[in-house]
Amino acid sequence: MSESAKDPQAHDAYRQAGVDIDAQDRALEEVKVLARGTFTPGVLTEVGSFGGLFRPDLNGLEEPVLVSSADGVGTKLMVSAMVGDYSTVGHDLVNHCVNDILVQGARPLFFMDYVGAGVLDPSKVVDLVRGVSAGCRENGCALLGGETAEMPGFYRPGDYELVGFIVGLADRQNLLDGSRVQVGDTLIALPSAGLHTNGYSLARRVFFEILGLSVESPLPGGDSTVGRRTVGQELLAPHLSYLDCISPLLGDEALHAMAHITGGGLTDNLPRSLPDGARAVVDLDSWQVPEVFQLLVGAGRVSGEEAFRVFNMGVGMVLFVAASEQERVLAHLRSMGTAPWVLGSVEQGADGEAVVYRGGSGAGH
Amino acid sequence: MSESAKDPQAHDAYRQAGVDIDAQDRALEEVKVLARGTFTPGVLTEVGSFGGLFRPDLNGLEEPVLVSSADGVGTKLMVSAMVGDYSTVGHDLVNHCVNDILVQGARPLFFMDYVGAGVLDPSKVVDLVRGVSAGCRENGCALLGGETAEMPGFYRPGDYELVGFIVGLADRQNLLDGSRVQVGDTLIALPSAGLHTNGYSLARRVFFEILGLSVESPLPGGDSTVGRRTVGQELLAPHLSYLDCISPLLGDEALHAMAHITGGGLTDNLPRSLPDGARAVVDLDSWQVPEVFQLLVGAGRVSGEEAFRVFNMGVGMVLFVAASEQERVLAHLRSMGTAPWVLGSVEQGADGEAVVYRGGSGAGH
Repeated sequence: MSESAKDPQAHDAYRQAGVDIDAQDRALEEVKVLARGTFTPGVLTEVGSFGGLFRPDLNGLEEPVLVSSADGVGTKLMVSAMVGDYSTVGHDLVNHCVNDILVQGARPLFFMDYVGAGVLDPSKVVDLVRGVSAGCRENGCALLGGETAEMPGFYRPGDYELVGFIVGLADRQNLLDGSRVQVGDTLIALPSAGLHTNGYSLARRVFFEILGLSVESPLPGGDSTVGRRTVGQELLAPHLSYLDCISPLLGDEALHAMAHITGGGLTDNLPRSLPDGARAVVDLDSWQVPEVFQLLVGAGRVSGEEAFRVFNMGVGMVLFVAASEQERVLAHLRSMGTAPWVLGSVEQGADGEAVVYRGGSGAGH
Repeated sequence: MSESAKDPQAHDAYRQAGVDIDAQDRALEEVKVLARGTFTPGVLTEVGSFGGLFRPDLNGLEEPVLVSSADGVGTKLMVSAMVGDYSTVGHDLVNHCVNDILVQGARPLFFMDYVGAGVLDPSKVVDLVRGVSAGCRENGCALLGGETAEMPGFYRPGDYELVGFIVGLADRQNLLDGSRVQVGDTLIALPSAGLHTNGYSLARRVFFEILGLSVESPLPGGDSTVGRRTVGQELLAPHLSYLDCISPLLGDEALHAMAHITGGGLTDNLPRSLPDGARAVVDLDSWQVPEVFQLLVGAGRVSGEEAFRVFNMGVGMVLFVAASEQERVLAHLRSMGTAPWVLGSVEQGADGEAVVYRGGSGAGH
């Protein structure tokens, strides 16, 4: 996958750690196959050269703009280590990055990954890249290269750092930066699939310390624990990509802005698309907060204020849409198989109350 | 610098760790100032939005190709922690990435960084970004954004992971991929400034375990230790960027390929630019291996074979040049203030002997 994977130091460290070097070479081959499986027509290079080469298709673009983002998976990585399944967090990472540039109006071109560990276990590296590769394929995004770094003593045994970097493309005239948002716009929400990649430090504290559960425990609550998903399954639920269902709306004048609900929750992410003098009003009665968040809020004694900043509370993505076009946008989103709802609207507002929560139990807001 | 720096979880963790939140906010402002100081005309965005926006200048390019690379600093990071100076490794990282895409014929457009730690110390994050920012300014490369991640329990106190991603631009017709290299080409070397960013696990073992030195110890050897640099200074010597001196040669027909001498050394990096049936012949009498490598090889009882794979041995970059043009290229490089020399040449060769070392003491090769 990278030059350092061929570093003889790595080989020495493998030898000392009793790792089969043939296994490592086979893993490197597997990684190359996984990356090749993501290649799109723009890719000019084989994996393994100094840098990846990508020829963007600029046809029809008046003023091409590259949109880029870097991200990690946070302590969801520690859950993957607890469960012993490293094959899904890479998918989370790609989807997270795709959404981060999607909200600016960009479609992904390529992705680069970084895997760091104290001693690299070839099969775990392959699993991590398997997830990255699956995410890249889902989003039509080429895995152009990456780096694996072995840093003895820097990471704990079993811990893997995974960092991703995405580059996408947009026409400047179609960039979304919040400048089109107007008072009166409708906020349309798309559901998340769980915690996505935020709030894991608190979630781990609640499940594993306060509730004393393990990753194998059935998720508490409900009438019966029969057939319920485990805590580990719930916490590793994938971060959804919204590219497929939103991509047809890019360049549509009805779409004024978007907000990807990550760290900071609705409270911190909605204001990033708000013009001065406007506030987002969120109707807490417009959706049922999923059970896992209710559980976390209850068992962790998390205030409503904190909950809406630490967790996405079931909202993965918010679209700011011209009110007159909301039915058309909702119909399109439903036709893509998602379950959108009207979350609220943009109102006139003074400084310091960028997001106002209305309705619900009244607790915390 | 990034969304997660505004994550309330980070604030909570800061509070628990006794870190002043005002200090953190001031640090975030400093990071933004440092990033803005690198901005080039292509940058369209302020730092802090979901993703960075960059409008590449495509004028005069027939077929624009993006060239991208990801890298870390490896265990040089641990030396920075031992010395307590986090302000230089970011510069190493940028220069490393710049060289990695330079050897493919690309000039840098922008850079993204990732900083991970157990608990982020705002002043150390600022120092890390200060180094990244200095590297970006040196190379005319915009620091377009990044991510800071706080992962309690994942990193040891004082340890910081630093990962970088670079995107550069080249015209397809000027890409260097080794296909122009011919038997008879001259290898021209440019000196490194020390270990650059490779071989640190072995170097740390030799200096701190075998020799029992500290980062404050004067570098051993020579007639006198008066006025000598310390072990820490030697190990933190910056990874050089070769962009300025090589950039005027991009598109020059005399330049057939380049090799950035990183992990794998001359032994593994030269072959990446060799066509089938060719080998690189390196004349060991053509340069004096710098003292630090001699010290490492001697005290660490490192074989010649291992040394030329783990360390750069004083060679930071190799240019594959048409023999008839070597004097012109050497003159250009000297005019840029560097001290190039003829390292060897490309000869006909069979498989399995991609690099042949001639001359020297005869040891190991």
